[in-house]
Amino acid sequence: SAKMKIHKKRWNIRASEMSKNTLNPIRAIVDGMKLSPNPDKAMIALSIGDPTVFGNLPTDEKVLQAMKDAMDSHKYNGYAPSVGYQKSREAVANFYCSPEAPLEADDVILTSGCSQAIELAISVLCNPGNNILVPCPGFSLYKTLAVSLGIEIKHYNLLPEKSWEIDLQNLESLIDEKTACLVVNNPSNPCGSVYSKEHLQDILAVASRHCIPILADEIYGDMVFPEHTFYSMAPLTNDVPILSCGGLAKRWLVPGWRMGWILIHDRNQAFGQEIREGLVKLSQRILGACTIVQGALEAILNSTPQEFYQDTIGFLKSNSEICFSALSSIPGLNPVRPSGAMYLMVGIEMENFPEFENDVDFTEHLVTEQSVFCLPATAFEYPNYFRIVVTVPEDMMVEACSRIREFCQLHYRPCNQESNDLDQ
Amino acid sequence: SAKMKIHKKRWNIRASEMSKNTLNPIRAIVDGMKLSPNPDKAMIALSIGDPTVFGNLPTDEKVLQAMKDAMDSHKYNGYAPSVGYQKSREAVANFYCSPEAPLEADDVILTSGCSQAIELAISVLCNPGNNILVPCPGFSLYKTLAVSLGIEIKHYNLLPEKSWEIDLQNLESLIDEKTACLVVNNPSNPCGSVYSKEHLQDILAVASRHCIPILADEIYGDMVFPEHTFYSMAPLTNDVPILSCGGLAKRWLVPGWRMGWILIHDRNQAFGQEIREGLVKLSQRILGACTIVQGALEAILNSTPQEFYQDTIGFLKSNSEICFSALSSIPGLNPVRPSGAMYLMVGIEMENFPEFENDVDFTEHLVTEQSVFCLPATAFEYPNYFRIVVTVPEDMMVEACSRIREFCQLHYRPCNQESNDLDQ
Ligand SMILES: Cc1ncc(COP(=O)(O)O)c(C=O)c1O
Ligand SMILES: Cc1ncc(COP(=O)(O)O)c(C=O)c1O
Repeated sequence: SAKMKIHKKRWNIRASEMSKNTLNPIRAIVDGMKLSPNPDKAMIALSIGDPTVFGNLPTDEKVLQAMKDAMDSHKYNGYAPSVGYQKSREAVANFYCSPEAPLEADDVILTSGCSQAIELAISVLCNPGNNILVPCPGFSLYKTLAVSLGIEIKHYNLLPEKSWEIDLQNLESLIDEKTACLVVNNPSNPCGSVYSKEHLQDILAVASRHCIPILADEIYGDMVFPEHTFYSMAPLTNDVPILSCGGLAKRWLVPGWRMGWILIHDRNQAFGQEIREGLVKLSQRILGACTIVQGALEAILNSTPQEFYQDTIGFLKSNSEICFSALSSIPGLNPVRPSGAMYLMVGIEMENFPEFENDVDFTEHLVTEQSVFCLPATAFEYPNYFRIVVTVPEDMMVEACSRIREFCQLHYRPCNQESNDLDQ
Repeated sequence: SAKMKIHKKRWNIRASEMSKNTLNPIRAIVDGMKLSPNPDKAMIALSIGDPTVFGNLPTDEKVLQAMKDAMDSHKYNGYAPSVGYQKSREAVANFYCSPEAPLEADDVILTSGCSQAIELAISVLCNPGNNILVPCPGFSLYKTLAVSLGIEIKHYNLLPEKSWEIDLQNLESLIDEKTACLVVNNPSNPCGSVYSKEHLQDILAVASRHCIPILADEIYGDMVFPEHTFYSMAPLTNDVPILSCGGLAKRWLVPGWRMGWILIHDRNQAFGQEIREGLVKLSQRILGACTIVQGALEAILNSTPQEFYQDTIGFLKSNSEICFSALSSIPGLNPVRPSGAMYLMVGIEMENFPEFENDVDFTEHLVTEQSVFCLPATAFEYPNYFRIVVTVPEDMMVEACSRIREFCQLHYRPCNQESNDLDQ
């Protein structure tokens, strides 16, 4: 009977292709960096896209109160519909409704963070083999999600010299019959740019001409500095269907709560029932946001005082001005002035820093020598820039800028070409 | 110049294959039913797998307090790591740790509900073209997720006459070289069954022989009636790697909070680093659970009093006994006695109810005449049964059973075959 023993196979468990194709460029780059801060200087991280980490940007008391009220009501512990409570969807619809782009509860799908909103939007619009157009530089999640789903991405260029407007010709040249969606992120991570109405209309004209729906990542919507205006895309078009993705994370400063949404704008009936039903179906895979946050949503949207939003924006503007003007005067650096969101991109004139190979090398040494960490923009597919997050306390921002100055002064080498020019 | 007008394409946006392939059999069946209750009788829904809807099963005060403390600490508003806070993972590890199957924080991945735990587990183990083995009758999400990802499902049979134990021969016969995972749901939705240690060992022996990893859906873990014992699978094997999926939804009665987890059990190193890294990567797609709930998790696990668990189980047992004994004495019905969870399956001797075509038809008429709604088990791929949820208040359960009796008495027809037998 020992001979009759069933042949035991060997264990051979491999991670799926999808998991292997779920690539996080920020993690990949940061994990590959040797980040050993200078022991004599306290670390200052200008890299973290989480406005809560330094404690200087708490959410509003009304927001916390809304959560407590939702808890105390004992009404929000059970399952919500997979697309969210009707009342909460209605609250979002009312908040974002405009005469030009009306919204009803049915046009809103609540999700687990803006990330899931983006995931559902991409998943419903694209099949494997399709492609989507994403900004470069841009937030990496679009690529992470698309590639893992077998969807190709095509990067369109943003123009730093035009405050990161889209290179429309380049954009249009990328469109082909497999293009399923155009992703527009305004205000932008990592650029901090805010598009004018005219530029958004130009983008919409391209989408309209080629009949490409838009995924508008408007998570930083309304987070624009006082002299600028945020235009949501949907009211600016009559025909281009738009899935606008947003959430509580940034404007209400509670990214951990994972409350996001999709606003379905489709006045031209181009999405029709099919996309709506597709989104509902996809929402049933894992259900959406925590019901306590959903229960608090109406009060959060309606009771947060204007001063809270203004104070946040005031702080972000002031800090970004401090940073922009400090870095503007540093030879070798070219910061691009932001108009909103929480970020600032800084160009490095690599030829003036011959010791360093690229932005990754540059920012790595900035940590080693000055204990200041900025994310190399290679993480956004945009080499030779780095991104600064302007949510840190003002004194840290000032200190960080002076350390960056010291670092640059130490390593800056004037180019021969330039000195030749000057000689002439 | 009018002639040079650029040819405008037509809008032709279709929902993706994935969204079309995300099928929810419960929704499909329920939406297809004509549910018009008898206006003279108040509706009693025995169909809803949400223990909170009737208000008779509130969560514990300590659980709510833990949430408020997490809120008040102001520490849990920012982003958590994508796999969850280290401290919260540690709390789960400690709670489920056993000498036979030790767990550390790194073995725990926090997710948005047990649903996302299942999604990540399937996504990391399977490629399109693989198959997974799922119970029949069984919770429909396994199939929903798998099919949408291009993974085939194979149903293995549960045996009602053996308290829904797995037909092991049938199970083993389904395994082929494409089988990537065996899903075991214990205690079971929809059966309310609880497997013995011996049966679990037999299942593990099959998995071990064929080197198939197990997805153990243990969301109803520990929810077993006093005379039964819940055995988690992991401590019962030394070689079979297990992803155990669970969460707060059922035992703590807060399904809306979307707090779930995966426990990685891999003492034999069959998953190795690859599966762990795959899970981490997948967790970065949309991030996981709400940080407030994560922040409360340690206190929830450690402070919820034993009486709370006992009271819940006591109620579920008492209600299921009431239901089981009432339905046992109804000619034409064959309830299967449950040992845990919140469900009870009832067989319908369809030949004795010739007016009705099947379980869907039967339960539809039960609504029309008696305003009692039970989910037809066709929703679990198991025709001619229906599922009862035993979380309703006792008086409703009693009333529902007496209405079911009335309905059955009205429609029951003895079979010719049986009367012949009696004549002999
Ligand atoms: C442009 C952009 N979109 C979406 C997100 C994701 O938002 P959430 O945290 O709500 O998932 C972020 C987060 O940093 C972002 O910068
Ligand atoms: C067997 C089983 N697994 C998983 C789940 C999903 O749990 P959650 O609500 O935490 O996603 C359920 C919910 O009903 C279930 O019955």
